[in-house]
Amino acid sequence: MDRMSFRRELAQQLRVDSIRCSSKAGSGHPTSSMSAADLLAALLDGHLHYDFDNPADPHNDHLIFSKGHASPLLYSCLKAAGAISDEELLTYRQFGSRLEGHPTPELPWVDVATGSLGQGLPIGVGIALAARRLDQLPYRVWVLCGDSEMAEGSVWEALEHAGHEQLGNLIALVDVNRLGQTTETMHGWNLDSYAKRAQAAGWHTLELDGHDPEQIENALQKATNNNQQPVMLLATTKKGYGVAEVEDQLGKHGKPLPDAESAIKELGGPRDLQVTVSRPDQRGQPHRFQTTGGERPAFEVGSEVATRKAYGQALRMLGDQRGDVVALDGEVSNSTFSEMFREAHPDRYFEMYISEQQMVAAAIGMQVRGWKPFASTFAAFFSRAYDFVRMAAVSRADIRLAGSHAGVAIGEDGPSQMGLEDLASLRAVHGSTVLYPSDANQTVRLVEAMVDREGVSYIRTNRGATPVIYGPDEEFPIGGSRVVRDGSDITLVGAGITLHEALKAARELASEGIQARVIDLYSIKPIDTETLVQAARQTRGLVTAEDHWPEGGLGEAVLSGLASAGVQAPVKTLAVRRMPTSGKPAELLHHAGIDAEAIANAARQLAA
Amino acid sequence: MDRMSFRRELAQQLRVDSIRCSSKAGSGHPTSSMSAADLLAALLDGHLHYDFDNPADPHNDHLIFSKGHASPLLYSCLKAAGAISDEELLTYRQFGSRLEGHPTPELPWVDVATGSLGQGLPIGVGIALAARRLDQLPYRVWVLCGDSEMAEGSVWEALEHAGHEQLGNLIALVDVNRLGQTTETMHGWNLDSYAKRAQAAGWHTLELDGHDPEQIENALQKATNNNQQPVMLLATTKKGYGVAEVEDQLGKHGKPLPDAESAIKELGGPRDLQVTVSRPDQRGQPHRFQTTGGERPAFEVGSEVATRKAYGQALRMLGDQRGDVVALDGEVSNSTFSEMFREAHPDRYFEMYISEQQMVAAAIGMQVRGWKPFASTFAAFFSRAYDFVRMAAVSRADIRLAGSHAGVAIGEDGPSQMGLEDLASLRAVHGSTVLYPSDANQTVRLVEAMVDREGVSYIRTNRGATPVIYGPDEEFPIGGSRVVRDGSDITLVGAGITLHEALKAARELASEGIQARVIDLYSIKPIDTETLVQAARQTRGLVTAEDHWPEGGLGEAVLSGLASAGVQAPVKTLAVRRMPTSGKPAELLHHAGIDAEAIANAARQLAA
Repeated sequence: MDRMSFRRELAQQLRVDSIRCSSKAGSGHPTSSMSAADLLAALLDGHLHYDFDNPADPHNDHLIFSKGHASPLLYSCLKAAGAISDEELLTYRQFGSRLEGHPTPELPWVDVATGSLGQGLPIGVGIALAARRLDQLPYRVWVLCGDSEMAEGSVWEALEHAGHEQLGNLIALVDVNRLGQTTETMHGWNLDSYAKRAQAAGWHTLELDGHDPEQIENALQKATNNNQQPVMLLATTKKGYGVAEVEDQLGKHGKPLPDAESAIKELGGPRDLQVTVSRPDQRGQPHRFQTTGGERPAFEVGSEVATRKAYGQALRMLGDQRGDVVALDGEVSNSTFSEMFREAHPDRYFEMYISEQQMVAAAIGMQVRGWKPFASTFAAFFSRAYDFVRMAAVSRADIRLAGSHAGVAIGEDGPSQMGLEDLASLRAVHGSTVLYPSDANQTVRLVEAMVDREGVSYIRTNRGATPVIYGPDEEFPIGGSRVVRDGSDITLVGAGITLHEALKAARELASEGIQARVIDLYSIKPIDTETLVQAARQTRGLVTAEDHWPEGGLGEAVLSGLASAGVQAPVKTLAVRRMPTSGKPAELLHHAGIDAEAIANAARQLAA
Repeated sequence: MDRMSFRRELAQQLRVDSIRCSSKAGSGHPTSSMSAADLLAALLDGHLHYDFDNPADPHNDHLIFSKGHASPLLYSCLKAAGAISDEELLTYRQFGSRLEGHPTPELPWVDVATGSLGQGLPIGVGIALAARRLDQLPYRVWVLCGDSEMAEGSVWEALEHAGHEQLGNLIALVDVNRLGQTTETMHGWNLDSYAKRAQAAGWHTLELDGHDPEQIENALQKATNNNQQPVMLLATTKKGYGVAEVEDQLGKHGKPLPDAESAIKELGGPRDLQVTVSRPDQRGQPHRFQTTGGERPAFEVGSEVATRKAYGQALRMLGDQRGDVVALDGEVSNSTFSEMFREAHPDRYFEMYISEQQMVAAAIGMQVRGWKPFASTFAAFFSRAYDFVRMAAVSRADIRLAGSHAGVAIGEDGPSQMGLEDLASLRAVHGSTVLYPSDANQTVRLVEAMVDREGVSYIRTNRGATPVIYGPDEEFPIGGSRVVRDGSDITLVGAGITLHEALKAARELASEGIQARVIDLYSIKPIDTETLVQAARQTRGLVTAEDHWPEGGLGEAVLSGLASAGVQAPVKTLAVRRMPTSGKPAELLHHAGIDAEAIANAARQLAA
């Protein structure tokens, strides 16, 4: 059998297997798999360089199914490559199977979870950046995109960045099957529409018939010969190709074929072809950046330092100490102070401009290759990338996020710039860590602790300078808290800016004979339940204060912690309950009812 | 003074006033204002049609400062147009002033809050869609964009949609001043870069010197003569134009001028020019869609109906009854069932394709003109538009969101498609309403209640069919709850899918002699504290169960409700604490520990 005939047969097998596994499951997206089968057959047979026995080999290419709903095709490819058995293929979508409805890294050959459209390409940009600028290895990143997902702005962010960085190691295969879930896409089969857009962003584009093995081979050869630019293959395909009952028809999305048996017959019946995927080029080893020692920055107790500034210094120190730490910023590095890392380690700093989705996606891509990314912007603007953060958890990705300018305490810039929902949204990410230091030395310790932390870690920093209250040698483990002031009448719980307000309130209360215990809850998740329980038992109640909306933040974290321990106590939760405006930080803390005065008032009520 | 000289002078005044107010405030973005002053002078003097005495006039043009940090320029324009006094101008950024750091609708001439970059253009698309397809009036939408924000994917979603819909009533003025906050933009002054991208998306582009009044006039005339396509003016400008100390320099972003006095002198000193802005064309009245009555759908108690299906029927009914209700969907209308509205009211249905940011932005834009948008997609995918939802609250926008396919109960599709953070993230939006019905008739009532609700309202619907337990005549006010089963031993609190599990658990517990009260907490925010307090007082404790992560959802809402009432009670919160996988809904509810068995176990422990 000649090569093109083999690929035709292999593609038919991929279609048949996609139908078989989704029919067995009773759900899934076989028609979206069938359209891309010829592209994948060609990729597996001669263009992908990948060792399925060693998915961690740094020389491997990377293959991302950005159209994650084509999981039947991916799993059929894994079978054809000998990575999984036919028996396992037929466990698709069953409880306990690794072959989930949309791919996740539960499979060792899957780098990242997909299924939220428009994420695979920006994550691919991250891996391609890692290849070029970090690993400095010639592996390629292949991304299978659907045409519907080209409507996502995140895809255009990826096109921009890949073009700007001239990522000649990135190849997108766009399966232009014309049909979305409910309707035709904006551009149908107008490949030129896509080509013009991609070319404008600096991509090389190739248009082809996605069911013609010769044209596919020709395009893949051209693509791999171009190392100067990212390349986009725009392939006209038909959804459900090869089965007349469903081919190129609306209403056939996301469901098993009506008559699988006859469809399989129409496709020539089951096959059991194995494809020999090329091994990766073993030349070269991943680049290692030199380290220079790097002392932990130390801040003098009693001085005033913004925690965002301490973040920047800690990040630079980590860069000094470790070659695997990298930083990304959304064009606000002089606000987040990631500029300190940029200045010291420009080769490991990535300017992501104002495109937060691409920034988080790039961090996810870089950690695929073992790098330790820290991505920073204003706390408020991580809301722009929330879907990427959510999916990072499904990807079991280890990423570190730093959100500066938290809360009303930023002052004059007003509510658009105030992160007031970051604690809630970041807590509600599976396996996440949420930190909110109140002091510069504490910030340094927490940033250090983030670097080897699994999952999504988030640190919230303040714009304004706050007093340094801890010595540089004090330790602050994640999951801990600190009793900053002891007292047995009442407990005040704060973090970040409100810790300082709580301390002021405690001094005021002391002058009235009320002894307030003050807890610095710098680790919002995981939370130090034990210290809270002790406070609940030993004092008359807790007042929590947070520069955040009342929902899902510090106050509710405390309530949850106590409830989980089965402990009941009076808790008053102070939070931002009115829409803020512009003003001086102190005015806004007062307006929000989270300043020392409000905390003291709440404490008096509880202590009475 | 001839017209071009007047505009030159007016632009200088706008610069001087931008410097004056930001210097008075001690913060703000004068240099970003100065670059666009000539564009705005020309727009005010002859091209904008707007009645500042009647900002609610439906014939008015709309002007959005997508680069919201150029607020000094906006407020200087308001002064020049006679809308505000010089005295008020100098209250900029002070506590209590309407002139916030970034514009908000606290000012009657501001449609929407900006300051999170990349939002103004997609919202402008929404207003322009309203003009063309809803109001059917010839007003124009003008959007002042920064060049840095062109890196946001949301801007490209807007370009796509505007081009696709041929919005000839939309004109973007891009202030290409080359410099971002920390560095040069990707494209610098390469106007062709932007032009190619916009042209590819179907825009007409005009390149010009943004400080040359003749070129600006020429471009604006061409732009207003083109009603077939959206038009983008790409203007080369200099940040801080006119003041040598800051002009075209990095490091001058977001701070008052170092020497305001000499800068004002360099600009020729203060002026007090007034500009007469053209009145809007009063011809025509906003289109009103015909209503057809429309009966409330009724579902039979004991039948099984998915709440997403009831949503679709309720939405269609609202469309039948009211001409102001419109619907948008992110290309999943056959999943969310907004297709029922689309079929009945195709002229008021907007297909937003897979671009959730543009979808929510369009809804925000349409409500500016008084329309009542309902936007729907999978619950999980609203995370893509979270920043727009956050900013909708700052905009005081009334929008309605419907998220289907909530939680692990969706089954085989796996975690990428499961909305498990929607309650947390939507609760943490100021003034939001969060609803989670368990039954089809209840869903209809809640959708009805959303239509005139202020702020951001969110309804969460389930994929699978659940038993209808309420009659069609029962009422479910927002902020209420329903005791579905009485009992004095223990209380079970659920909503949506878990309400049904709680009912099963209660039946099981009853067979063991434990009488469980079951509360349907369909209104998660606002929450019915009174009913929860009664339950806390009258039973031995509460078990909450939610198909959501443990953070920020139903369980913490209950804890907050009780704490706010000063009531203490044992509460066990059941939620999804492990990463879900694919499987049958019942398997996944069991795996998550939120099924009837888990609820009954928790209740037994509390009741013991």
